[in-house]
Amino acid sequence: MKKKSLVVKNGLLVTVNPQMEILKADLLIENGRIVSIAPDIDSTNRDVFYADDLIVVPGFVQTHVHLAQTLFRNSAEDLPLLDWLEQKIWPGEASLTPETLRLSALLSIGEFFKGGTTTIQDIGIVKNAHVLFETIAETGIRAVSSKMLMDSGDGPQIIIEDTDQALTESLELLQRWHGYDNGRINYALAPRFVLSCSNQLLKETAELAKKYHLAVHTHASENKKEIELVKKRFGMSNIQVFEYLGFTEVSLRLAHCVWTDEADRQILQKYDIKVLHCPSANLKLGSGIAPIPDYLQRGINVSLGADGAPCNNNLSIFMEMRLAALIQKALHGPQSMTAETVFKLATIDGARALGLDQEIGSIEIGKKADLVFLKRNQVHSIPDENIYAKLIFSARETDVQHVMVDGQWVLKDRQLLTIDENEIIDKIKL
Amino acid sequence: MKKKSLVVKNGLLVTVNPQMEILKADLLIENGRIVSIAPDIDSTNRDVFYADDLIVVPGFVQTHVHLAQTLFRNSAEDLPLLDWLEQKIWPGEASLTPETLRLSALLSIGEFFKGGTTTIQDIGIVKNAHVLFETIAETGIRAVSSKMLMDSGDGPQIIIEDTDQALTESLELLQRWHGYDNGRINYALAPRFVLSCSNQLLKETAELAKKYHLAVHTHASENKKEIELVKKRFGMSNIQVFEYLGFTEVSLRLAHCVWTDEADRQILQKYDIKVLHCPSANLKLGSGIAPIPDYLQRGINVSLGADGAPCNNNLSIFMEMRLAALIQKALHGPQSMTAETVFKLATIDGARALGLDQEIGSIEIGKKADLVFLKRNQVHSIPDENIYAKLIFSARETDVQHVMVDGQWVLKDRQLLTIDENEIIDKIKL
Repeated sequence: MKKKSLVVKNGLLVTVNPQMEILKADLLIENGRIVSIAPDIDSTNRDVFYADDLIVVPGFVQTHVHLAQTLFRNSAEDLPLLDWLEQKIWPGEASLTPETLRLSALLSIGEFFKGGTTTIQDIGIVKNAHVLFETIAETGIRAVSSKMLMDSGDGPQIIIEDTDQALTESLELLQRWHGYDNGRINYALAPRFVLSCSNQLLKETAELAKKYHLAVHTHASENKKEIELVKKRFGMSNIQVFEYLGFTEVSLRLAHCVWTDEADRQILQKYDIKVLHCPSANLKLGSGIAPIPDYLQRGINVSLGADGAPCNNNLSIFMEMRLAALIQKALHGPQSMTAETVFKLATIDGARALGLDQEIGSIEIGKKADLVFLKRNQVHSIPDENIYAKLIFSARETDVQHVMVDGQWVLKDRQLLTIDENEIIDKIKL
Repeated sequence: MKKKSLVVKNGLLVTVNPQMEILKADLLIENGRIVSIAPDIDSTNRDVFYADDLIVVPGFVQTHVHLAQTLFRNSAEDLPLLDWLEQKIWPGEASLTPETLRLSALLSIGEFFKGGTTTIQDIGIVKNAHVLFETIAETGIRAVSSKMLMDSGDGPQIIIEDTDQALTESLELLQRWHGYDNGRINYALAPRFVLSCSNQLLKETAELAKKYHLAVHTHASENKKEIELVKKRFGMSNIQVFEYLGFTEVSLRLAHCVWTDEADRQILQKYDIKVLHCPSANLKLGSGIAPIPDYLQRGINVSLGADGAPCNNNLSIFMEMRLAALIQKALHGPQSMTAETVFKLATIDGARALGLDQEIGSIEIGKKADLVFLKRNQVHSIPDENIYAKLIFSARETDVQHVMVDGQWVLKDRQLLTIDENEIIDKIKL
């Protein structure tokens, strides 16, 4: 158990509590949790960390990422989704060994920590998914991950596998990793997308999810051609397929949802389906601009993710936040998607998407100490009368100085503490 | 005279020459110019700079910026253009003293250098524009700047001035600064936009530009309401007004051009009018998305600028490049606006917009040594099979390690050499 007390003194706390308070105060952290927020907390016999010129924010949550794709960064340009998958991504994923998969995950998690992301929902990989969980475990990031499910001849041939084997392995990983390290790691079932799954796999996945009360993480309604193919196969929309197959009875988390009609949106709303918004990826693959302001107005929970490095080509929550705001302002006017709204998508709403909003996503008493410390006074971000504007539009990843997860430092003075950065760079650089 | 020779060894040169070569080679710099590009240049009796793990690119060119607005960063959120100007920007500009104006320019130029921008076209300020030129001169940035012209009761009352005085002062600044420091600084005439200028001012500005062969830098067709007001006043479109008044006989540089019709685009094309594209600002103010792929197809010269800090809220060419690519891919498909195309907009096409493409914008023999050295091997940007993809989509401002203008270092190991960064931060921070 982590028993030592730490007092964080004099930080500017962007709490994301229900009142959205921003305040100068101290934090007391014990056993990985925030136990007090107050001015002048007594630091006698406690470790002290001075945060005088720092902004302290909740660790960022990215709800849709691909740890397995990061080695394909800067190698899959100017393609639409289905060509990008078939020509670049599936062959790439099929070629990964346990060693290169681990390297990919380490590179990703290093980038997440250096950019202030402390929690991810990763959609996994078909083969050797255990490597992802092992790497998540050793680096200390908070994560939901999965074995990715693909068994269908409808789409790709290159990495599909047997239906039963896919589900059996999923259950093995579930038993091994769900709830690991005091709940830091969790398991979700992850059919890649409807087109890569047989009807049998989809049905059995829904049954398993219901039986074990598991979340389901998948891609949906990202691209017009994808939607056409789903409609051709099922005679209904992609979102309707999930309702039809019973996925709406569990925690369903859908990456993208770029193209949805009124009926789809009513389903999203009715079943509290979580929309995982990936603005860079949606733009870069030419998929489109998701109707996020409409989702938010309906009360649908929206959160953010960088998706995969080869369609981004970063894993930065700062880039996603800025872009999530700007693209909607262009379409719906400058009042839409305020900086404060977007900051919630990247913190508390991300936590809610993962069912973790009682544990993380804000700086409040009782929550886990997943914290990010940002340099406040930089030529590119001062002055800062509006702190949310600063965080969304001026700040960048490299303003992140220190990061902790569960009260444990994972980044200090921009040095990774659980990953050997030089070693991974040496192995990867051209 | 700068007589010393410098050999830059082993850099990966992204030349932006007509063949768009990327090559490992040495550079020889003498008297501020590149005099040789070759493998293994002899370094006997010469200074040597090792660039082994660095990418060397031409200094970035931002063709539309506001040095005078940077102190208003993070203080003018969620407003459309005309409200933003009237409620925030004009009162702010009117309140600047020579001291705060200088601070604003220093903060801006510090950010430009730290992000690899070596050349700017600044649109100036109404009062005390000489302060901008003095600050440009002392910091070593390459710049076109201006006294901003506003005399009209049509729009703002707060900072307008007498027509004759505005033009007389412009001529004084022109004589003092045009061609300064071996051409590093130049002067352009800068009516703010049609709505802030009387017909007399517009006509006389066009006459002066023709008489002295001066460039004209202004805003045009940024916002639908602005365009309506121009049409109501002149009975023609904003772009047509410039043709009608004779501005198309000189080098005309128009920031924004978000809303143009077929007739407007034919005018842009016919007179080789330079479009200064500011994607962040256009999105953030809700103005819209400029039809850049169409402009490029017509052979219209497009370049990039961050516009003002309060509508961005950065002055980063990296953010503008990434956004310029992504927004068009969303609308026109992933093949549009390749990374290579966008990289040209930020370098050689920017140079061309300013009439400086024989001097800067690429790494070629005979050109000025305006160079940016970027760290290549970083967790957020490897691997990098496609170097342009890396530069546009993965790289960020803080990858910039060293910068030179005219062969003189202005940033070394991310330390500003001509600006006291700590002093300006201390003066500005809240």
